[in-house]
Amino acid sequence: MQNILSDQSGNAIALLPTLYVVWSDAVLSSRELKTFQDFIRRVSWLDENDRQMLQAKLSYNAPPTREEMEQWRLAIKKNINEDTEYNSLASIGVDLAQNRSPKDIPENDQIKFKNDLLTLEEDLGIIGKSAIYLFKSKHPTVTTAYSTEEAFDIPKLTSMLDGNQQPLIKEIKKLLSDPTFAYVDPADITAYRNQVLDWCKILADKGYGAVGYPKAYGGSGDMEAYFTVMETLSYHDLSMVIKFGVQFGLWGMSILSLGTEKHHQKYLKDVGSLKLPGCFAMTETNHGSNVKGIETTATYDQNHRTFTIHTPHLDARKEYIGNAALHGRMATVFAKLIINGQDHGVSAFIVPLRDESGSPLTGIHIEDCGRKMGLNGVDNGLIAFDQVVIPQENMLDRFSRVNENGEFESPIASDNKRFFTMLGTLVGGRIGIPRSALAASKSGLTIAIRYGDQRRQFGPEGGTEVPILNYRMHQRRLIPLLAKTYACHFALQYVTERFLNRTEEEMLEIEALAAGMKSYVTWHTTATLQECREACGGKGYLSENRMDALKNDTDVYTTFEGDNTVLFQLVAKSRLSAYKEQFENMNLFTIINYVALRTKTSLTEKNPLIVRNVDEKHLLDPDFHLSAFEYRENDVLDSAAKRIKRLIDEGMDPFDAMNVCQHHLITVGEAYIERIILQRFSERVNRTEDKDIRKVLTKLCNLFALYQLETHKGWYLEQGYMDGVKTKAIRKMVNQLCWEIRKDAVPLVDAFDIPDPCLAAPIAIPS
Amino acid sequence: MQNILSDQSGNAIALLPTLYVVWSDAVLSSRELKTFQDFIRRVSWLDENDRQMLQAKLSYNAPPTREEMEQWRLAIKKNINEDTEYNSLASIGVDLAQNRSPKDIPENDQIKFKNDLLTLEEDLGIIGKSAIYLFKSKHPTVTTAYSTEEAFDIPKLTSMLDGNQQPLIKEIKKLLSDPTFAYVDPADITAYRNQVLDWCKILADKGYGAVGYPKAYGGSGDMEAYFTVMETLSYHDLSMVIKFGVQFGLWGMSILSLGTEKHHQKYLKDVGSLKLPGCFAMTETNHGSNVKGIETTATYDQNHRTFTIHTPHLDARKEYIGNAALHGRMATVFAKLIINGQDHGVSAFIVPLRDESGSPLTGIHIEDCGRKMGLNGVDNGLIAFDQVVIPQENMLDRFSRVNENGEFESPIASDNKRFFTMLGTLVGGRIGIPRSALAASKSGLTIAIRYGDQRRQFGPEGGTEVPILNYRMHQRRLIPLLAKTYACHFALQYVTERFLNRTEEEMLEIEALAAGMKSYVTWHTTATLQECREACGGKGYLSENRMDALKNDTDVYTTFEGDNTVLFQLVAKSRLSAYKEQFENMNLFTIINYVALRTKTSLTEKNPLIVRNVDEKHLLDPDFHLSAFEYRENDVLDSAAKRIKRLIDEGMDPFDAMNVCQHHLITVGEAYIERIILQRFSERVNRTEDKDIRKVLTKLCNLFALYQLETHKGWYLEQGYMDGVKTKAIRKMVNQLCWEIRKDAVPLVDAFDIPDPCLAAPIAIPS
Repeated sequence: MQNILSDQSGNAIALLPTLYVVWSDAVLSSRELKTFQDFIRRVSWLDENDRQMLQAKLSYNAPPTREEMEQWRLAIKKNINEDTEYNSLASIGVDLAQNRSPKDIPENDQIKFKNDLLTLEEDLGIIGKSAIYLFKSKHPTVTTAYSTEEAFDIPKLTSMLDGNQQPLIKEIKKLLSDPTFAYVDPADITAYRNQVLDWCKILADKGYGAVGYPKAYGGSGDMEAYFTVMETLSYHDLSMVIKFGVQFGLWGMSILSLGTEKHHQKYLKDVGSLKLPGCFAMTETNHGSNVKGIETTATYDQNHRTFTIHTPHLDARKEYIGNAALHGRMATVFAKLIINGQDHGVSAFIVPLRDESGSPLTGIHIEDCGRKMGLNGVDNGLIAFDQVVIPQENMLDRFSRVNENGEFESPIASDNKRFFTMLGTLVGGRIGIPRSALAASKSGLTIAIRYGDQRRQFGPEGGTEVPILNYRMHQRRLIPLLAKTYACHFALQYVTERFLNRTEEEMLEIEALAAGMKSYVTWHTTATLQECREACGGKGYLSENRMDALKNDTDVYTTFEGDNTVLFQLVAKSRLSAYKEQFENMNLFTIINYVALRTKTSLTEKNPLIVRNVDEKHLLDPDFHLSAFEYRENDVLDSAAKRIKRLIDEGMDPFDAMNVCQHHLITVGEAYIERIILQRFSERVNRTEDKDIRKVLTKLCNLFALYQLETHKGWYLEQGYMDGVKTKAIRKMVNQLCWEIRKDAVPLVDAFDIPDPCLAAPIAIPS
Repeated sequence: MQNILSDQSGNAIALLPTLYVVWSDAVLSSRELKTFQDFIRRVSWLDENDRQMLQAKLSYNAPPTREEMEQWRLAIKKNINEDTEYNSLASIGVDLAQNRSPKDIPENDQIKFKNDLLTLEEDLGIIGKSAIYLFKSKHPTVTTAYSTEEAFDIPKLTSMLDGNQQPLIKEIKKLLSDPTFAYVDPADITAYRNQVLDWCKILADKGYGAVGYPKAYGGSGDMEAYFTVMETLSYHDLSMVIKFGVQFGLWGMSILSLGTEKHHQKYLKDVGSLKLPGCFAMTETNHGSNVKGIETTATYDQNHRTFTIHTPHLDARKEYIGNAALHGRMATVFAKLIINGQDHGVSAFIVPLRDESGSPLTGIHIEDCGRKMGLNGVDNGLIAFDQVVIPQENMLDRFSRVNENGEFESPIASDNKRFFTMLGTLVGGRIGIPRSALAASKSGLTIAIRYGDQRRQFGPEGGTEVPILNYRMHQRRLIPLLAKTYACHFALQYVTERFLNRTEEEMLEIEALAAGMKSYVTWHTTATLQECREACGGKGYLSENRMDALKNDTDVYTTFEGDNTVLFQLVAKSRLSAYKEQFENMNLFTIINYVALRTKTSLTEKNPLIVRNVDEKHLLDPDFHLSAFEYRENDVLDSAAKRIKRLIDEGMDPFDAMNVCQHHLITVGEAYIERIILQRFSERVNRTEDKDIRKVLTKLCNLFALYQLETHKGWYLEQGYMDGVKTKAIRKMVNQLCWEIRKDAVPLVDAFDIPDPCLAAPIAIPS
């Protein structure tokens, strides 16, 4: 039998590309076989010889050999023009037949020919446009060619992110880049903890520990700088950050905020220099979120002017206490003050734990919490007090004290109010933690985005492999998180400013902001680092690339300084009762003020024109975004309030009613914070003068807004605030923005300006 | 001035409860102060004396003392009846005044009195019903009283879950409970890896390693048992499971599936006994998901009848290879076969790595992957081959071989088809991994749910603290995940059965099922363990409670045996081209068969009556659930196919078109798998004879279905398949089912029957 390639064969050669593709893709199912065979029988332009030749090559039992296949391919390749854009195998087939034919095939026949071949291609389900690349040397596509572009001045954006804190930030980054701060293996807990302590000593020596304390006690009186230090250190080892925060934040700030001058005089300098390592002993095994319920007692003895600190049972031990297992020499201990058998609520006391040599003092029983998921450079421990006697002066007596006559005195009569006032002074921690968390998100995104820009996998047939960040799904995984990280950055700057310039009247609002941001940002961080790990594949699983540490160290951020679900409920409750003065009060008596007083404000109208408006200008309009966020914020608040009230009116116990609506309340808190974040981001974009930076930040802000709208589209559709046609248009716009921002993604993470020695991940650092 | 409590005071006492609450809650804002003062001035039933007394107690500057407050409280408490259900402070106030009054207050006056007091309460935003518990000793609520109930026979449910594999499962669980299998500290990598190897030796000695191999080679020829072993071992240390899987699954099964009798004879017995530890060396640094692109070469030398295995550059090293860093003596190496300079695609070869003493052989360069996020008991390594010569017989030659004349031969002509046929034989791994993952989910849920049942935090004013699992948000976090875990359990049993009883024609479908389940279940596991960790708060962060190991060990499951996003795309492509024979082929030529051939089937009509049907019977109707799942499955598939076709028709390169639709394709894969899971779960529930078990499984199945519908409600609303009124009803039903199943939650996790020594978490095991 003749060879299809031989000069004697006729138009059979026109079918060669199809034949090759069908066998090369191994798709010759019986259905396809039949389709092909029928075709050969049917078309008029094949002679009997051609038919026989072709049928012979369409047999299950006698597939073409590899050599034959290769001959076919080369023959086709030789005949086609590399620069011609063929749209189908048919067009190649016609060309082949044309080249073979001694005389030109008439144009009409060519058309018939090609149409027949196209029909076959379609019947076989072949995408000819793609298959033709089996015969070409190159296959350029938009996806392949896409890449990073530097469209703005990166150092300028860094300056904008850093703001007035830039000199301090640069200074700390320089310090962290010193070989002294080279990472250590976290497996050897003892060495790791000592290293972390040593690092903290260096930081203390540089004055960073005391920076927030008054000048009189060795500090700089600069709380803004303290937050900056916490955040910038968070580009490095997070055990170090938490140890730092325990020592200088929790331990030191508790003395500053809850104590009086005598305590400041006596302790602050040594705390700030780390000469006196200490703990913040609030949480107990049985009482974490519900701190009010702690059971440790401080019993006053008027004869000796002492307090006896005591742990009534094992589950009332102080647990998870940082600095306790090894280094802490003293602790601020929260305990119920008992005078003459009467409980006066929770107060704070300074209790010595260890002597100069580091041995626990009499009555102090300390146990190591042991290995944790992360933060193993911090020596968390359990503390039990067995009738430990401390002098009266050790009571931190700013908000409560025992007078000469052994009577309780306080400037705040209500136990409740006093307790929450005490907690309120510690709100700084709820700003420091999300700022630390966000720094970890930035590290994760820098690693994953730089890797995605370089890592190539798969590609078009016959083309080069494609950077994985060019894949739409990869963009969808990472780019919206990058946008949200930028959004949170500016919102956290705003909350910090509010905190630094706070007045007494604003405290409830600021506490709600801090608690909400803490929850929102730490959950964002957990989600971001998970995506980043997965986006780096196996490389992300190797500890050397730091996703391990970043994920595991920050995982507890959603729990400590207040469990996120509990905090969001508190935010919701503060929103329900705009008039309540104390933030963390779980009582229900007054939270429904809101319901009684608020009249439903006229919300954005559900105008059918807007509900279905898919105009690009409208979709990218910041006013539309903010209105939509505000609408959600107000509507979930209103409906939660009404629902709770209705349930109570129907006879349900208020505690049960709150429980029934708990999920709803989380949404109330989240919607409030999300609106704040958008507002602050948008406001910051508007103030940006540099055109290029403004352009890219506008895109990020649009993406943040639209991605959240897409996330909540179920809710918006339920409400009739948007129609399906609009939510679909939003999805499309999100895809488009991800695609556009992908070009800026590397410059955008470069603008975080994380020093290479901190980032450390080999996959993220150009070698 | 008189004391309000003195006998001389008049009706002022009626205001005492309100006064107490207002001060106790510390809510005396200026607004509230004014409201209260106005009230006192206004009401007719206070005399001047009363007014003065009360006003004196409503001053910022002279708040009541703590002692005074306590006197008030005791006085009120003494006067009220513990058993009376007061609805407001007003009713207590009226009682107090009534008791005080020498003569009965006329009923009309009582009503006026009470109405006035109620108005004040409302104006102050006090929920009297809750506040009255400040004066009571107990505060029973529905939330507090709710608890676990054992409504079905737990061992019977365990039997149902275990099925015919129960004897083997029990046997393995017993073995794992032996002290030999006590967990070790993962920090000491060397000791940990040795321990894991020792455990695997014990398992091999018991015959578990070889259980899937033919009897002729020391096995039992029981693949079902092999899956059971993998799954049951996964209640224990997951490094052990992966090491076990590498040795007996990947290494052994590659010989069994890709080799021929001579290889089986020579190796399988020693592999099954672990006398011959080996590796599965497929992935390279530069080629993970895109395995077809690997660059290691195997060059044939006809003179010596040998192959030379070579690594062309560092990024072509085999990476993440389990058993490589320490214990592997040989490896199945995937490499491009080169004969006479011609590339014949990927084949597999047995390559010796180490001598008997464990030293790497000449030309073998091995590097340890070092510390990983988890699975540190597995010695993953990098392997480079420097012109390593192996005899011809070491080629695993089931699908390709070199004949006597040095020519390539294969029963499968197409390189593509051969490659994917080879991969197809390894599909078992994609069943083993999700089964292992699901076991880890079960461990996590058992720990978190038992803890949530015991752990108490917060509670109603004056009442006891509440088990956190009684909180609706906590239920929402865990119960739907429990339902999904049950759903996945039955679906994985189904896929296993399909795999065990497969015919050649079903392979594409089964590969799609396995790949889809692998992605779906491993993502479910990651999400579940994250929720479980957070649900256990600080306790969940301590390594002793095992969330650390469970989370970190399984984190890579979403990446290995195929990255989840890549796999879901393959599932989608197999759905798009129902006629394609090879599963993992990334070529686009034929996937659009679907578009050409499928005519849009008549989907469930969007009947307005159904769109808005919120009838409970309808919402709990399995037919409604399945129709909704199927509607989504088909619609996203249809629309994806049309979208891709439209883009190509508009002139877009098919590769770009697929990329534009990538996100859509993930949904196609997920929707398909979700329908399968629901169908299998529902089918299993229907076959359940035990009424009690059927009842609880029905609830779980309903919850799984409705929770997924709620998750995708944005999509359903967009499509007009449901109306907002219906999605809201679904949300409510989800809440209700979570609440109901909470009672069964502990028995449901107990039915997993995880041995205490495996679970090990102190918070999960009754002490």
